[in-house]
Amino acid sequence: MIPVVAFVGASGSGKTTVLEGVVGELKAQGLRIGVAKHSHHEVQLDQPGKDTWRLAEAGCDVVVLGTQRGLTMFDRSGEDTPLEAVAALVRGRVDLLLAEGYGDAAVPKVAVVRRAVSSDLPDDRENLIALVSDVPFALPLPRFSFDEPRALADFLVGFCCHQAETH
Amino acid sequence: MIPVVAFVGASGSGKTTVLEGVVGELKAQGLRIGVAKHSHHEVQLDQPGKDTWRLAEAGCDVVVLGTQRGLTMFDRSGEDTPLEAVAALVRGRVDLLLAEGYGDAAVPKVAVVRRAVSSDLPDDRENLIALVSDVPFALPLPRFSFDEPRALADFLVGFCCHQAETH
Repeated sequence: MIPVVAFVGASGSGKTTVLEGVVGELKAQGLRIGVAKHSHHEVQLDQPGKDTWRLAEAGCDVVVLGTQRGLTMFDRSGEDTPLEAVAALVRGRVDLLLAEGYGDAAVPKVAVVRRAVSSDLPDDRENLIALVSDVPFALPLPRFSFDEPRALADFLVGFCCHQAETH
Repeated sequence: MIPVVAFVGASGSGKTTVLEGVVGELKAQGLRIGVAKHSHHEVQLDQPGKDTWRLAEAGCDVVVLGTQRGLTMFDRSGEDTPLEAVAALVRGRVDLLLAEGYGDAAVPKVAVVRRAVSSDLPDDRENLIALVSDVPFALPLPRFSFDEPRALADFLVGFCCHQAETH
């Protein structure tokens, strides 16, 4: 299995921005990175009129568009894919999968907490491995500020290497 | 492996329309259907400004957007995924994978030939299992007209069942 780390926190706390920074640092280290984002809203990414759209409308459960530079897969099965299954899907394509959301998944988590939004920690403390926060917490976990993507990336690489060695 | 059948033919011969009809018939039979389309053009399906777009721009090789009703995966690895690897990707999600394009793949093929566009058959005759055409050909293969999606769907189901039995 590839390593998976989920970034959890209240909406508006800056998870996507934190991930952008971390991804940039991890890419600079030569790693292949995947990000899985979970949304509670329906999202329309395909575009009406395109062939992929027509085929989806015809009833396809899955539509894949492949090109010489990549691939897009639309799964319209009507089911939510658990993070573990997403990890299986991207296996071989990435070295590390970061997630945004997927708070229910039993994977290592980084909590993103911004005082102006909410100072609550996620319910799942057991899987918490670090914090990105402008609020101090009395927890024996590394805490990073919002402007330390490099340090956070280094921590994640160290954590995942350690996990790989002990599993 | 799930069964794979590729629809090949000149651009403009009506492959997508044929597939739309066949998919509708196969869905009516309760099958889970995937379609993989290969495009030689770069296609921009993600949308600037969205979180998925931002994460891709940050350098992610793969971005997945999961919702309660499905999943979209953007692979920006810069590589073309062979049809066999697409089949592995959708395994468990569909019962049958139909392809549009992917003429180089060594899979069973249906040639779509419309006289007004081109009367050429694909180079790969060896894997040809049927024709959809308004032109007669002296080939020992079933030929369907453009308005017989039901008959073509039934043929495909029979062909795939037969393949499954003999493999």
